[in-house]
Amino acid sequence: MPVPTSPRAPADPLAIFGLLKPHFRALDQFLHGQLEQFEPEIRDMVAYCVDTSGKRLRPALVFFSGWQGEDVVPEPLVKLAAVIEMVHLATLVHDDIMDQADLRRGKPAASRAFGPDTAVLLGDALLAQALHIAAGFPTTAVCRYVSLSTRQVCTGEIMQTLARPDTPRDLRYYRRVIELKTAELFHVSCRLGAHLGESGPEFEAAAGTYGRHLGTGYQIYDDLTDFFGDEAKIGKTLGTDLASGKSTLPLLTLLERLGPADAQQLRREMSEGDTRQIGHRVAQMREFGVFEAVQDAIRSEIDSALRAIAPWSTTPTGRLLGQLADLLTHQATSLRKG
Amino acid sequence: MPVPTSPRAPADPLAIFGLLKPHFRALDQFLHGQLEQFEPEIRDMVAYCVDTSGKRLRPALVFFSGWQGEDVVPEPLVKLAAVIEMVHLATLVHDDIMDQADLRRGKPAASRAFGPDTAVLLGDALLAQALHIAAGFPTTAVCRYVSLSTRQVCTGEIMQTLARPDTPRDLRYYRRVIELKTAELFHVSCRLGAHLGESGPEFEAAAGTYGRHLGTGYQIYDDLTDFFGDEAKIGKTLGTDLASGKSTLPLLTLLERLGPADAQQLRREMSEGDTRQIGHRVAQMREFGVFEAVQDAIRSEIDSALRAIAPWSTTPTGRLLGQLADLLTHQATSLRKG
Repeated sequence: MPVPTSPRAPADPLAIFGLLKPHFRALDQFLHGQLEQFEPEIRDMVAYCVDTSGKRLRPALVFFSGWQGEDVVPEPLVKLAAVIEMVHLATLVHDDIMDQADLRRGKPAASRAFGPDTAVLLGDALLAQALHIAAGFPTTAVCRYVSLSTRQVCTGEIMQTLARPDTPRDLRYYRRVIELKTAELFHVSCRLGAHLGESGPEFEAAAGTYGRHLGTGYQIYDDLTDFFGDEAKIGKTLGTDLASGKSTLPLLTLLERLGPADAQQLRREMSEGDTRQIGHRVAQMREFGVFEAVQDAIRSEIDSALRAIAPWSTTPTGRLLGQLADLLTHQATSLRKG
Repeated sequence: MPVPTSPRAPADPLAIFGLLKPHFRALDQFLHGQLEQFEPEIRDMVAYCVDTSGKRLRPALVFFSGWQGEDVVPEPLVKLAAVIEMVHLATLVHDDIMDQADLRRGKPAASRAFGPDTAVLLGDALLAQALHIAAGFPTTAVCRYVSLSTRQVCTGEIMQTLARPDTPRDLRYYRRVIELKTAELFHVSCRLGAHLGESGPEFEAAAGTYGRHLGTGYQIYDDLTDFFGDEAKIGKTLGTDLASGKSTLPLLTLLERLGPADAQQLRREMSEGDTRQIGHRVAQMREFGVFEAVQDAIRSEIDSALRAIAPWSTTPTGRLLGQLADLLTHQATSLRKG
């Protein structure tokens, strides 16, 4: 089956985000409006967490999946985007506790700014408020999907941080983790966006499948940038996933291509979070074709995403989702091998 | 206005819990059935947290507020009780991280058993699942109330652990904290229980008010047991609230009754969590009438709770809620002054 490609690949792959300016403005307004819903005693801390400088990938998926035209900013889509972004923010606040992260979006992580205990509770409050907004829709559909996918995100994170001796460090486990921790929320963003856009149940399901594959591809891409930085990440410390014991696709692929003794040694480095050999390991990834293999895996997910929405490739929303997939292809192929 | 009392105070104040045997059995079954909803990879950890040995106060409020008769166990009430108990469990899992608690209900706290990072995520997963069950009701009402009150519980907890220099340590702040962290979920338990019991909007509102006052009284009682143990708590370490810097009513009342220099000294002990003088402070509470003043505060909340449902005091549900209030009175008055 030939791989469908988006019919109108723009010269500037980031251009499609320009279309979302009014949508993002409405989203920011909505999120800031939400601050008043929080009790005054914690409002400034919530405002600190709800900054709007993120990539807003999930909101973009919501807006494109429910697209109604360039100058139309449907209020239900804004609300849904806010729900999903707020769930995502809550998980970031909790992730930063675990990863003992210093910075988030250029300023001290909430766990550093307010301490880990308060950050646990702030994340909880954000999550509760996200579901409270979700309960403002006329039906329980948004609540049902978002709460389910939140549970799955948490499960994926638990599986990733689980340090039991019997935790399998294999491809199947990796796939399961990223499906839960990333692909599910992408899936729900697209499916519910399409639902609110009233494009019919067939497109809803197709958009959901698109989202799941795009999310998987995005997570693999993100895992690859831990070893091969893109321009935006020059200066970033490489190998933080290795340091925190995450078995990502680049590492698992390298493991498969090493001789038994060296593989054993790398397994030890992974379980101990030992990054002293990181330069050597990245050189091996380069040498043994790991970089290309992981890029292929990303491409394969993007192809599956595009295939899911191929019947809608000439509709406005299908075109936009296609271009968003192209953007990920562009980012993945512009990673510098070294 | 005379204080209404329950018309049928039982000889054994715990007897009314006996009425709930079939309800609690159904609740346990429902909660255990929920385990299958969680991904298999985390099911055993969730099962560890979802034990059923707690006091199940909030479920009791749900069942009594929506009471349909002794042999009737309405499925919607069971589901609601499960939602609220699961939210409560999630907050306990997170509380135990903060308090660095060793034990919860006689076994190692989840944060000890699985580590604090996993406990953060487990609490999140429990919370998400609670709201997922809530989204299974035909309307968004349960989701809306429960998510809101979850946010308030977290806000109350944040306010309690906030260690800013400008955090007021006064009665007004204390009242606000316990309203948010405890009274709100009691309020929602009663209000939604009455809602599902279809007793009409007037009783719904009255039951909610009853719940809020009972919750406040219960929290004050719980704070008093930190200094004056009841029989069940013999052997418990006293003064853990003082150690963790919580300004509870017994401490605030004592502060008001000390001379300026000693009050200053106690304030220092409170902000530093210094419990070396705990025996002396408890003796002062005894000597300066703090014990009685706090018991009065509990009684006053119970009276307000009973007043709210006085018009229904001869109905089965009104009688049961009255007896539950009597039970709290009994527990508070049987605290040993020492």
